[in-house]
Amino acid sequence: MFKATAITLIPEAWPGPLGASILGRARAEGIWDLETVDLRTFGLGKHRKVDDTPAGGGAGLVLRPDVAAAAVDSVQKCPDLSRSVPAMTRPVVYLSPRGRRFDQEMARQWAAGPGVILFCGRFEGLDERAIEARDMQEVSLGDFVLAGGDVAAMAMLEAAIRLLPGVAGNSASITGESFENGLLEYPHYTLPREWEGRQTPPVLLSGDHRRIEEWRISRSKALTFDRRPDLYAAYSETPTPTAPETGDEPD
Amino acid sequence: MFKATAITLIPEAWPGPLGASILGRARAEGIWDLETVDLRTFGLGKHRKVDDTPAGGGAGLVLRPDVAAAAVDSVQKCPDLSRSVPAMTRPVVYLSPRGRRFDQEMARQWAAGPGVILFCGRFEGLDERAIEARDMQEVSLGDFVLAGGDVAAMAMLEAAIRLLPGVAGNSASITGESFENGLLEYPHYTLPREWEGRQTPPVLLSGDHRRIEEWRISRSKALTFDRRPDLYAAYSETPTPTAPETGDEPD
Repeated sequence: MFKATAITLIPEAWPGPLGASILGRARAEGIWDLETVDLRTFGLGKHRKVDDTPAGGGAGLVLRPDVAAAAVDSVQKCPDLSRSVPAMTRPVVYLSPRGRRFDQEMARQWAAGPGVILFCGRFEGLDERAIEARDMQEVSLGDFVLAGGDVAAMAMLEAAIRLLPGVAGNSASITGESFENGLLEYPHYTLPREWEGRQTPPVLLSGDHRRIEEWRISRSKALTFDRRPDLYAAYSETPTPTAPETGDEPD
Repeated sequence: MFKATAITLIPEAWPGPLGASILGRARAEGIWDLETVDLRTFGLGKHRKVDDTPAGGGAGLVLRPDVAAAAVDSVQKCPDLSRSVPAMTRPVVYLSPRGRRFDQEMARQWAAGPGVILFCGRFEGLDERAIEARDMQEVSLGDFVLAGGDVAAMAMLEAAIRLLPGVAGNSASITGESFENGLLEYPHYTLPREWEGRQTPPVLLSGDHRRIEEWRISRSKALTFDRRPDLYAAYSETPTPTAPETGDEPD
């Protein structure tokens, strides 16, 4: 079982969208589990204070290192698992726009491990000493700023958990999708064959599987070239032979 | 009022984390509003079918263009607004890893407009003809794949809505943060001054505001240079004069 722990100031917002659809079903089936830790319970004094003003002045409030560390220390890093990786520790991740950007490769790495501990900050941020002392990995959802780490943590968990065996109905669904072969995914079509004067591309109705595969790869390449020249350049430079003529798809 | 409409197959997951903390308060105060449209209600026949098999074969199911377009057409693009931009239409966004990557600049653009209509796909994706016919903008949360568009839509809305006047407590909080000046944010410290043998940097306790500002800018630059050479290169190439000696912060 993949174990996710969210340390948060808004435990009531969890599991949020992770409770619905295939992720909700997978949790009910015991493929993954979620523990939410209310950071407020580690707060100081009668008012459970978790933050204070920034050293050196400035706007907003900063999460105290002692409170944050106490919450992290309360979490079991090696959960008792019914998987083959019981000795592995879970990484402690601090959601932060200053971190390494999350991507499909990181989703795959998380999915291959025992789970992850996600520290969801809020306010101006977390005292730097807690990040250092608890060896937190700073991970960013992208080049934008959120009100807190919770939505970012949910997005990353969803990307990782849907890769676990048994979550997405069909592993073939994952094989062909964006980023799995370094390209963006080709366009999809379904019924009706004609809609508002727009036709389904005839090749897709030809029944010729080799031509369909060629068409899809060529559309994937064209789309990636147009929209994401950075990805296309990386794709072109990989030593994997690419042969759209034969319909072979690079791994 | 900023109006967000989410077209979704999991309306029960909304508003999710957007109902908590400062975003929840801002919604209660009428700064923004959320409408959720259940895509299933536009489904066909007794079983409200929204999808069918992909033309040309392959795994999974594709959302039908007629069902998707009917949902989009049901939404008011120019909501009755008590803001100064009533004549502006809201963009229709399709959450997709094939799209333009969301960033802080897009969050600012959304926040300056009347709102946004977010089409949250699921399964293999949406029939390409609906994207074309309804002029949907494809926007991506990042280079990873989710089970559906909902979490991505929530993250983008949170980034945009927190920029609306009156949502974040203090506009100074936003001015200094990551991406607002092209750099990652400097490290934060708060009480206690010493914790587990780790000190707050003495400069932050000096009371010398010029030195504190210089230290913060230099740490921002060093952090950006180390972690995000791409951002640092763009920052260095901007014509804005950068003068850490004087404590001037580039705009």
